[in-house]
Amino acid sequence: MSTTTGQVIRCKAAVAWEAGKPLVIEEVEVAPPQKMEVRIKILFTSLCHTDVYFWEAKGQNPVFPRILGHEAGGVVESVGEGVTDLEPGDHVLPVFTGECKECAHCKSEESNMCDLLRINTDRGVMLHDQKSRFSINGTPIFHFVGTSTFSEYTVVHLGCLAKINPHAPLDKVCVLSCGISTGTNLIVLLDFFDQNKLCFLGLGATLNVAKPNKGSSVAVFGLGAVGLAAAEGARISGASRIIGVDLNTNRFEFAKKFGVTEFVNPKDYKKPVQEVIAEMTNGGVDRSVECTGHVDAMISAFECVHDGWGVAVLVGVPHKDAVFKTGPMNLLNERTLKGTFFGNYKPRSDIPSVVEKYMNKELELEKFITHEVPFSEINKAFDLMLKGEGLRCIIRMDA
Amino acid sequence: MSTTTGQVIRCKAAVAWEAGKPLVIEEVEVAPPQKMEVRIKILFTSLCHTDVYFWEAKGQNPVFPRILGHEAGGVVESVGEGVTDLEPGDHVLPVFTGECKECAHCKSEESNMCDLLRINTDRGVMLHDQKSRFSINGTPIFHFVGTSTFSEYTVVHLGCLAKINPHAPLDKVCVLSCGISTGTNLIVLLDFFDQNKLCFLGLGATLNVAKPNKGSSVAVFGLGAVGLAAAEGARISGASRIIGVDLNTNRFEFAKKFGVTEFVNPKDYKKPVQEVIAEMTNGGVDRSVECTGHVDAMISAFECVHDGWGVAVLVGVPHKDAVFKTGPMNLLNERTLKGTFFGNYKPRSDIPSVVEKYMNKELELEKFITHEVPFSEINKAFDLMLKGEGLRCIIRMDA
Ligand SMILES: NC(=O)c1ccc[n+]([C@@H]2O[C@H](COP(=O)([O-])OP(=O)(O)OC[C@H]3O[C@@H](n4cnc5c(N)ncnc54)[C@H](O)[C@@H]3O)[C@@H](O)[C@H]2O)c1
Ligand SMILES: NC(=O)c1ccc[n+]([C@@H]2O[C@H](COP(=O)([O-])OP(=O)(O)OC[C@H]3O[C@@H](n4cnc5c(N)ncnc54)[C@H](O)[C@@H]3O)[C@@H](O)[C@H]2O)c1
Ligand SMILES: [Zn+2]
Ligand SMILES: [Zn+2]
Ligand SMILES: [Zn+2]
Ligand SMILES: [Zn+2]
Repeated sequence: MSTTTGQVIRCKAAVAWEAGKPLVIEEVEVAPPQKMEVRIKILFTSLCHTDVYFWEAKGQNPVFPRILGHEAGGVVESVGEGVTDLEPGDHVLPVFTGECKECAHCKSEESNMCDLLRINTDRGVMLHDQKSRFSINGTPIFHFVGTSTFSEYTVVHLGCLAKINPHAPLDKVCVLSCGISTGTNLIVLLDFFDQNKLCFLGLGATLNVAKPNKGSSVAVFGLGAVGLAAAEGARISGASRIIGVDLNTNRFEFAKKFGVTEFVNPKDYKKPVQEVIAEMTNGGVDRSVECTGHVDAMISAFECVHDGWGVAVLVGVPHKDAVFKTGPMNLLNERTLKGTFFGNYKPRSDIPSVVEKYMNKELELEKFITHEVPFSEINKAFDLMLKGEGLRCIIRMDA
Repeated sequence: MSTTTGQVIRCKAAVAWEAGKPLVIEEVEVAPPQKMEVRIKILFTSLCHTDVYFWEAKGQNPVFPRILGHEAGGVVESVGEGVTDLEPGDHVLPVFTGECKECAHCKSEESNMCDLLRINTDRGVMLHDQKSRFSINGTPIFHFVGTSTFSEYTVVHLGCLAKINPHAPLDKVCVLSCGISTGTNLIVLLDFFDQNKLCFLGLGATLNVAKPNKGSSVAVFGLGAVGLAAAEGARISGASRIIGVDLNTNRFEFAKKFGVTEFVNPKDYKKPVQEVIAEMTNGGVDRSVECTGHVDAMISAFECVHDGWGVAVLVGVPHKDAVFKTGPMNLLNERTLKGTFFGNYKPRSDIPSVVEKYMNKELELEKFITHEVPFSEINKAFDLMLKGEGLRCIIRMDA
């Protein structure tokens, strides 16, 4: 048992005091974990666009002051009452959506939207007592999606922690705690395979028994880390045309490494991009994935799939007042539209084996990691994402 | 070869001269079939809501004068150049959407939306020469969805005719030419089974090998013939709760025969019906089917499925300017939305075997047929549908 068990820990955290203002590294107090909670020491965290949205808080409920961050890797420091699955020293990835293992969703094979622990972006407190575990001189600082990883120590519900192989390098596998898992697993949702819940990451083993639609065309909207992970999945599954769509032309050169074969910048055309894609593909792509968070891209991603068989998957987190609009004939014409959280993975059950795929070299993470900064320069990671430079920036807590 | 081969036939047809005005039985001239066309003698036809929509022409392009009708059974009178699959005397069901057997859709296992012969509700002429085969004193009378079955004789493209068992009673199986096939096959789309393209009608044989989601809940919006056929399919697949939703309370008593276990009339509630259903079902139904043609019902049908796993299928033919709107979070929360034409059946390939299911008593059609009128009283069938009375009214051409 560590000497800090049961004690308040004072440590550094990057606090977002106001929407859109640079984070400030502050000394915060982190209360001990309560019932079913775990306190973890974060070693590495990275920045995902979802953090940026809730920091900008445009079209999202502003909850400040707040500690953001949800892609990370850490080590258990101490556990609260009732926690038997984890113990101090375990290596974990915190996940923004949880798995209680008892509700209808957790028991369903089809869903990962746990009733108890599903993502809640408005809640800034812990479930147990509706209070924050972070404070500065008695003022509570709010949590973010139950993870708040931009802190040396954080408190997370047991159900939001995936226990992983202790030999896995946390500075790499931390990116599996959100974006890359979401993106790579999309291919499952795209129904490229007959099997029910086949993980694309298990491809090496299953390509021969499964029936990938070799020669399919796929459009990926948004070539950030999530979109490129989806492109990579499409490539491995045998798609012959992978059309990348992004407003930022710089993304294009980069995207080739991830299997993207053609590029479309909607700004280069007067007509809607769905029409451009339909013309390029003789009526539409077989599958599309939207990874931008913008509702216009969601509509384009849906309308650019081929009638009769096309499937579109939405991943981006939309503006809270956004409205998805389409002519119902687009649906009647036998197109399918679906959405996903976290690539439909159940965090505790599925993520440890995704980490193993990395360990077995079936999955490459290095190419998603383009930058690294010390914790003291965390605002640089925000600048990079806002400028659209790079994919994932690792933030080292010890530096 | 019949003596009428190659000749113009003069016969009776019910002509819609103007939107919403009673049809008038007129003597029309029916030209001989051209290349790839077949002239058929209609023996029985029935009325589907789609006829009523295009007759009312509210929110649809008005095309008049026109001969409506698309659910029917008939006998081949003569065939045009190039037709080798059919010969005079063959029994056929005309279908509003065709199968050329050569395009990408016809070759795809996933689609029935033939490039050449898919439904086109605006076209009132034959494909071959862009002309009508119907006229009165030289004035062309337009076709409807390539079938125009409200005529003693009609000309149909070969690709829109399913050749069926000559022993099948046409006064019963005519209803398989549209609504009942669409409805009963919906269950395939609802993914109740693991198999790829399992026809619900083949249930007797497959219930044991397939994995029906026994105990599922299903909502059916619109309890006309199409909706009730969908309810029947859900019942046979083992759904334990089938919630019928209709604005017409008279439908409810009737619907019990088709497996509907609970009823909701949206007019009885102040809140949106999707919220009523979510409350009844602890978060939403597992599957829903929309068979009304109204966009508000389409939105409700989508939003009433359970997050995490719910699937909604749209069947109704919408107003041409209708817009489907929903918050993108409804999608992101892992709901699926899809549409269908003709229950995803390929008309020539699949319909003959559906007729066989009726012959083998695996499928009951009698309970869908609630009325019968002679051709001279065809307007009564319109009145019945407008009043919401009964399901299918058979129109006897010889009476
Ligand atoms: N559903 C989930 O479980 C889940 C998980 C992680 C991230 N997300 C969401 O996925 C999205 C992508 O995340 P990321 O970290 O890769 O972000 P990112 O900012 O790195 O990438 C987004 C890309 O989309 C492009 N883009 C923006 N608007 C566009 C438009 N209208 N058309 C085409 N391209 C456009 C941007 O130029 C950028 O390159 C975000 O919305 C994020 O919130 C969802
Ligand atoms: N996609 C296809 O292949 C296909 C094939 C056949 C029919 N259709 C369409 O299916 C629909 C049903 O056809 P039908 O012949 O059974 O029609 P019908 O008129 O017999 O039944 C429709 C029912 O919907 C109810 N209704 C109308 N608005 C409603 C609302 N907002 N909420 C709840 N209930 C509502 C009506 O009261 C009626 O009982 C029509 O839109 C028709 O055009 C589509
Ligand atoms: Zn994320
Ligand atoms: Zn749960
Ligand atoms: Zn019909
Ligand atoms: Zn075809």
